[in-house]
Amino acid sequence: MKKNIRLIIEYDGSNYGGWQRQCNSPSIQQELEEGLFKLTGEETLVQGAGRTDSGVHARGQVANFFTNSSIPSHRFSLALNSVIPRDIRVVDSREVSPDFHSRFWAKARHYRYAMVIRPYGLAIGRDYYYHIPVQLDIRSMEEAAELFKGQHDFKAFQAAGSIAKSTTRTIHYSKLTWKDPYLYYDVVGNGFLYNMVRIMVGTLVHIGKGKIKVSHMENILNSGDRRLAGPTAPAQGLCLEKVYYDEDNLLIKSFN
Amino acid sequence: MKKNIRLIIEYDGSNYGGWQRQCNSPSIQQELEEGLFKLTGEETLVQGAGRTDSGVHARGQVANFFTNSSIPSHRFSLALNSVIPRDIRVVDSREVSPDFHSRFWAKARHYRYAMVIRPYGLAIGRDYYYHIPVQLDIRSMEEAAELFKGQHDFKAFQAAGSIAKSTTRTIHYSKLTWKDPYLYYDVVGNGFLYNMVRIMVGTLVHIGKGKIKVSHMENILNSGDRRLAGPTAPAQGLCLEKVYYDEDNLLIKSFN
Repeated sequence: MKKNIRLIIEYDGSNYGGWQRQCNSPSIQQELEEGLFKLTGEETLVQGAGRTDSGVHARGQVANFFTNSSIPSHRFSLALNSVIPRDIRVVDSREVSPDFHSRFWAKARHYRYAMVIRPYGLAIGRDYYYHIPVQLDIRSMEEAAELFKGQHDFKAFQAAGSIAKSTTRTIHYSKLTWKDPYLYYDVVGNGFLYNMVRIMVGTLVHIGKGKIKVSHMENILNSGDRRLAGPTAPAQGLCLEKVYYDEDNLLIKSFN
Repeated sequence: MKKNIRLIIEYDGSNYGGWQRQCNSPSIQQELEEGLFKLTGEETLVQGAGRTDSGVHARGQVANFFTNSSIPSHRFSLALNSVIPRDIRVVDSREVSPDFHSRFWAKARHYRYAMVIRPYGLAIGRDYYYHIPVQLDIRSMEEAAELFKGQHDFKAFQAAGSIAKSTTRTIHYSKLTWKDPYLYYDVVGNGFLYNMVRIMVGTLVHIGKGKIKVSHMENILNSGDRRLAGPTAPAQGLCLEKVYYDEDNLLIKSFN
């Protein structure tokens, strides 16, 4: 019987078209599947928990795949790292129960969005931050970030033209951290619509610039109208930090 | 009379042959000089305080140049940033006294060396850290770092074949900081010999691996023998954080 192997993966998304396999550009999924083919000779589907977009990074992407290989489960990380590009690192591999599915079993995802607020862009780490050259009203942004918490219909915060069955999501954590000149937005939710985090950030930045009032946030949420929310913040600032699962079913601990 | 303009510069050294102009690869100095030529039509020497090597980064490189241009001094940063590559950012520009010289006037330099200690390399930020896949005895390294403090002949800690007139330097600050999985080494000195910081780090890492005993540090310093010190740590972990000048003569404050 095939073993089900779970991977935890860190990657720099700068040079990829995103997580998912596609025709016109390399993807993280493809690199991992090709790496596994080199190691095992098997054509395998590597199923990821979050379909990160082009330019989006991950520190804690979770994926799983099935294999007949005799490679010990915990050795897949080392073995894969020897055959995949340096900007993708498998930081953990282990066998999990046969019914584990990285995406369907995920209970929550933690994304971090990183900004740098100063007149000049960053030279060091420029691929990991959204550069904002003007001062922001961070207190108003903090107020607005609070309003994302709880269960809401996030229809206004998904990319126009998306066709999600339900647009209701629950946000468990939504907080800004200011470490001059860096501003971080951390958000944990049971799921995210297409471009949702980036539109939330774009809206927060618009609030910080005074282009949207905090008092309008409720209207935007209620309207379900994408045009009322802020612009989509650039991909490079976004990082999938962690995917949470039921402690009972998996080895991943802590919902901090 | 020409104005003397001082720049503070941040750069990602990954794609450069170093600070200094050279034949076979692009340099930070050349990019700045070409940028100034585009702005002013003048062929200018941009004199840097620290000649960082290929792959070495800077957050606080200081440089100065003379110009007849009518561009206001504080606008040079913005103007230069519009014509130089994104991996070099001028974060400050201002006029200083005509006799200011970025290198000769420098009283001290602060370098930070960044390491990551874990089995797998970094994907995110991989160009800014030296990856060490084995555990280190950090306490012994801390002890050894203390021994660099003060005035010593650092002949054993300069690249073989160097021809510095004097190899005596004074180290004001020498400290390791462990933020699992990151290890930082901060060092402030009145000057550094060629490759000195990288050989100091290579020696500390050898001590952390148990290949050199802390008790041998004094011997190594006294010997003046490059072969007794550890290997030269890779360039990518090194960053010139700040250059210090006399407060009386310049606007730069604090020796923190």
